[in-house]
Amino acid sequence: MKILEVNKLTDFKHLNLFLTKYKDKIGNIKSWIFASRSYSPNVMMKITNTLEENAPIADNLIPSDMSLIYKPNAVVIVPFHVDYQKIVIIKEFRVPLGNYQYGFPAGLMDRGEELEETAARELKDETGLEIVSIIKKSPTIYSSSGMTDESISLVYATCKGEPSIKWNEESEDITVIMVSPKEAEILLANPEIKFDVKSWIVLSIFAQTGKI
Amino acid sequence: MKILEVNKLTDFKHLNLFLTKYKDKIGNIKSWIFASRSYSPNVMMKITNTLEENAPIADNLIPSDMSLIYKPNAVVIVPFHVDYQKIVIIKEFRVPLGNYQYGFPAGLMDRGEELEETAARELKDETGLEIVSIIKKSPTIYSSSGMTDESISLVYATCKGEPSIKWNEESEDITVIMVSPKEAEILLANPEIKFDVKSWIVLSIFAQTGKI
Repeated sequence: MKILEVNKLTDFKHLNLFLTKYKDKIGNIKSWIFASRSYSPNVMMKITNTLEENAPIADNLIPSDMSLIYKPNAVVIVPFHVDYQKIVIIKEFRVPLGNYQYGFPAGLMDRGEELEETAARELKDETGLEIVSIIKKSPTIYSSSGMTDESISLVYATCKGEPSIKWNEESEDITVIMVSPKEAEILLANPEIKFDVKSWIVLSIFAQTGKI
Repeated sequence: MKILEVNKLTDFKHLNLFLTKYKDKIGNIKSWIFASRSYSPNVMMKITNTLEENAPIADNLIPSDMSLIYKPNAVVIVPFHVDYQKIVIIKEFRVPLGNYQYGFPAGLMDRGEELEETAARELKDETGLEIVSIIKKSPTIYSSSGMTDESISLVYATCKGEPSIKWNEESEDITVIMVSPKEAEILLANPEIKFDVKSWIVLSIFAQTGKI
């Protein structure tokens, strides 16, 4: 398989559609539309393809800050409260769903931020809690690569403090919830609750094993 | 928070952008753009909002097949091979990433299909394996609800047979891989490999506990 070209189809600020032309494994030229938060996934793709062929990279394809292309779009925090010995989740209104969803605190990385900084900032903003220590971090992983190049890093961290929504932004409508393994089991059994993929998997394991 | 209206911004076949106008918690009117595979998330949202207010639903807002709005877009299979006692993953070329990604077999639900049917069909097509029994199923859960209403169900299943890619479609470029907990640990430690979110979380737990 080989990417031939990527073209931007829309011109919105935060999210756009892109059309990729690619050659499939038997040589047919095909197209694929995907959504991206990036200004231009084009650059990253050309570099990726070039690297795979071990060919030199043309200077004009290298972004000025190479580190940007290896950073995820967003950080998702899996917070474990050291005093309560519970996982922290948030019930948050999600506009694309037109409804409330249970998930983990998360946010887009600001330019120049490290994973730990984004994690600490978003955890504080969304829950009022403070990170005690980082348990583990995922590499850059992909949310749903059939339809988007969106990437995240999962940051598992212990945290402390009392939950508060006083640092929420106006556009955020959040309730902070802390759950034991038993409470996780009860939430998961409630058919009225909408979970995001990450929180559903992590809470299922937590309910089953007490581990994160 | 309240959704006021949802408008379709593009008109492509498989994926489109939508603009939602909503009222935030202090009454400001704001907008949010998201991507959707659905023909029209509008209907579902209006129903959701109406239901929350306990008001009657206007007939013209109810789709003819109500079950459709509760089904996920796609099924993602977490296959555990009974003879090898290993988790099955696939290395697959993903056009939006312009690269290979390690993840689980998955596919969009066809109209009229049940979760188990989609799971069996996609597992066969992508890996050549057959489902022995369903271990557990998630409800409809959301891939990345800040940018899309895309939903999936995770179907954990035991499977049997010899891996084969002879049922792959032309557009698919897949390698089937089976991993023990130790092999999962080795893959996860390889910085060259791109994982999707679901496989990274499940393999991490499997490496750590031997459980799925």
